[in-house]
Amino acid sequence: MISHLNKKNNPNYVDISKKTKSHRFAKAKGLVVFSKKTFSEIKNLKTKKGSIINIASIAAIIGVKKTTEIIPLTHPISIDNIDIDIKLDKENKTIIVICSVKSFAKTGVEMEALSGVSAACLTIYDMCKAIDKKIKIRNIQLLEKKGGKSDFFNK
Amino acid sequence: MISHLNKKNNPNYVDISKKTKSHRFAKAKGLVVFSKKTFSEIKNLKTKKGSIINIASIAAIIGVKKTTEIIPLTHPISIDNIDIDIKLDKENKTIIVICSVKSFAKTGVEMEALSGVSAACLTIYDMCKAIDKKIKIRNIQLLEKKGGKSDFFNK
Amino acid sequence: MISHLNKKNNPNYVDISKKTKSHRFAKAKGLVVFSKKTFSEIKNLKTKKGSIINIASIAAIIGVKKTTEIIPLTHPISIDNIDIDIKLDKENKTIIVICSVKSFAKTGVEMEALSGVSAACLTIYDMCKAIDKKIKIRNIQLLEKKGGKSDFFNK
Amino acid sequence: MISHLNKKNNPNYVDISKKTKSHRFAKAKGLVVFSKKTFSEIKNLKTKKGSIINIASIAAIIGVKKTTEIIPLTHPISIDNIDIDIKLDKENKTIIVICSVKSFAKTGVEMEALSGVSAACLTIYDMCKAIDKKIKIRNIQLLEKKGGKSDFFNK
Amino acid sequence: MISHLNKKNNPNYVDISKKTKSHRFAKAKGLVVFSKKTFSEIKNLKTKKGSIINIASIAAIIGVKKTTEIIPLTHPISIDNIDIDIKLDKENKTIIVICSVKSFAKTGVEMEALSGVSAACLTIYDMCKAIDKKIKIRNIQLLEKKGGKSDFFNK
Amino acid sequence: MISHLNKKNNPNYVDISKKTKSHRFAKAKGLVVFSKKTFSEIKNLKTKKGSIINIASIAAIIGVKKTTEIIPLTHPISIDNIDIDIKLDKENKTIIVICSVKSFAKTGVEMEALSGVSAACLTIYDMCKAIDKKIKIRNIQLLEKKGGKSDFFNK
Repeated sequence: MISHLNKKNNPNYVDISKKTKSHRFAKAKGLVVFSKKTFSEIKNLKTKKGSIINIASIAAIIGVKKTTEIIPLTHPISIDNIDIDIKLDKENKTIIVICSVKSFAKTGVEMEALSGVSAACLTIYDMCKAIDKKIKIRNIQLLEKKGGKSDFFNK
Repeated sequence: MISHLNKKNNPNYVDISKKTKSHRFAKAKGLVVFSKKTFSEIKNLKTKKGSIINIASIAAIIGVKKTTEIIPLTHPISIDNIDIDIKLDKENKTIIVICSVKSFAKTGVEMEALSGVSAACLTIYDMCKAIDKKIKIRNIQLLEKKGGKSDFFNK
Repeated sequence: MISHLNKKNNPNYVDISKKTKSHRFAKAKGLVVFSKKTFSEIKNLKTKKGSIINIASIAAIIGVKKTTEIIPLTHPISIDNIDIDIKLDKENKTIIVICSVKSFAKTGVEMEALSGVSAACLTIYDMCKAIDKKIKIRNIQLLEKKGGKSDFFNK
Repeated sequence: MISHLNKKNNPNYVDISKKTKSHRFAKAKGLVVFSKKTFSEIKNLKTKKGSIINIASIAAIIGVKKTTEIIPLTHPISIDNIDIDIKLDKENKTIIVICSVKSFAKTGVEMEALSGVSAACLTIYDMCKAIDKKIKIRNIQLLEKKGGKSDFFNK
Repeated sequence: MISHLNKKNNPNYVDISKKTKSHRFAKAKGLVVFSKKTFSEIKNLKTKKGSIINIASIAAIIGVKKTTEIIPLTHPISIDNIDIDIKLDKENKTIIVICSVKSFAKTGVEMEALSGVSAACLTIYDMCKAIDKKIKIRNIQLLEKKGGKSDFFNK
Repeated sequence: MISHLNKKNNPNYVDISKKTKSHRFAKAKGLVVFSKKTFSEIKNLKTKKGSIINIASIAAIIGVKKTTEIIPLTHPISIDNIDIDIKLDKENKTIIVICSVKSFAKTGVEMEALSGVSAACLTIYDMCKAIDKKIKIRNIQLLEKKGGKSDFFNK
């Protein structure tokens, strides 16, 4: 069943009025993959790296908080924590973005974590696009989820 | 040079005051990859497919229009056209999202197209996540760009 | 007493700090009235009807979630459910929009339901205005309200 | 033809890239209809009236500026003028809201004027709902439109 | 310790998941200082004064509600009360803006009160800037804070 | 004349439909004043300083872009450049925020520059408030303005 469509195949905002609040956690990941040349330019400049991580982290926080404005059928919820971890994977010429979200809510925070990852990846892309038009954002996915009906761990 | 950092490595909003407006076009693409089981559930239900495409298209349009709120260093610009093409690739159990954006502007619309793709992919993910926690958003990338300093075509 | 003005006739954001949360429900309704010709064009096209309902439903959901940004003196609240019912009334050449909202909150959700109806009606208007400039949005009103000081049922 | 759906009945953001900018004007109107008792309470209090008009006018301005966030298929445009006229019609126990919008744009500003009217009407409703649950918002409609393909005047 | 930076000096969204909700209150103040001439023009016009206070009050309410969009590391929270007090200090040719905010939340509302003050001051500035380009916004500060780890009272 | 009120003392959105676009520039300034102890903690930590400047700069950019959402009577305009300069004034235990904005527009960008300064000051306050509740935001003012009817330079 596609939970976000009702019997008439119209958009269905899931009814959470009977659910009780519980601690929710979700961790998502995404990759920004560069050409060898672009990646060198980023990794060699240590201070630049710091600034890129700072700016992309703020974008992730904005992305988490704007989830319900971007993804129509999500519920507006409070956000107890946002943890952003952005690191360089030299071997694969990749920046790895990991975003974890916590809330005490009636519904999960997977979309918030994924939206945070997506905003950070797009922001890194934006900052580097002048030197590389072939950047790819890859493998945005859920890594872990706790709370609600069932936990999930993406091995 | 990372154009979005200034000499002190602080965020740099690119100065476009001396540029003249021209026709800008960008086309971006992204994939939502499902398990075999989930994909069957989507593709077999013809009417549902229509609704999913409708809702994801609206999300793409919202995503394009909210680009400057999500990606901090982008310029707010007017949007002359947004064209969304969402189709099922049965062989690869994938929904393909393509978003093209046109503007008459001093700066390119790559980020707008990519942000539209990203919002549509996240929305498709959201609608299907109850039946599949291993969905991946893959290969968000620029396909084509016209206008400005140079054109670009991603073969 | 106009509860939204204080003694000096300045805007009064109602103090709900001493209230306790309870289940709130509100249902509102609005009509979009067409000329005979326009209405035929809409009602004959079954698939189009589906798309119009999909798009207007998403607009209603956005409208509910944006209530506190549009109506200055409303409180930001969580939304547990949004139910949209859009149907064609052939006899009166009218599209009827009904929007029901649930929240567990210190204040009622009448404005959220009305704002959802309003956004859906405006969106239907927007989609049809190229063929009919005399469309009217009529009778946006509260149908029902539960929770808080008193229930209300509009016969 | 419903201009906001494409051939596959998916949402169609109208392409305005080939159009040239011109002066656009639209004037829309809406009514908020009260019970006799509520209306007396509003009209007798002269200073309150001023405050209600002030607050509703600000809501209209916000509503005009947020049009593209509320109505998915509208184009973001610049707004050169917003003129709000709110007056009491004693005979009909009604507050009349008129909102005129000007822009130099590739597309019309009907939806902006209607969205401004709608926000003002909802805000008046919100301020008075504690004393009257049967308020109705009626006859939101376009009065006049200039610029673009054809002018329109609603006699 | 700067609580909003983590060990790597990247932005730190403070984790409030283990905290319990309690009643929070904050009161902040700001001044808009005019030239003698401008101030006369404002204070002599009694009705204008009312309108300026109305409009600035609405701006304060918007500013409080938008805190989490403007200040990146703040948590989105519900707002139980916003009280705005705007008065003229003739001796000092100053408009004094005081904004008090209440919430039942896991975190304080100081930034909400300060953001409300700031929005009101900017709006007063905007309304008067055509006659006076030397207006100053001064002494935006916290006056009082209750709830959380410790109370605070700015003598 | 208070340009933002009409003859009836209701909010007046200034009509710019007859004006032509020209290059606009505005530079504004604000101060965040700390206790001696807090300021030492900030200035001694060189890397932290970098991060605080990065985060506050992003806040300023957001503040500039959100001007029209926060200050009701401002016109939405495009922004060609935002330049942020944040520096430490050791003698006065102060962080100085300077924000310059450029646009090619029918109206000035003073409020955009002031709103950017205000958002950066509030964000610096937010990051440091855990160690100092007596921080003050002082002297938010216009430094310079070019374009439009007259230039202005605040000596």
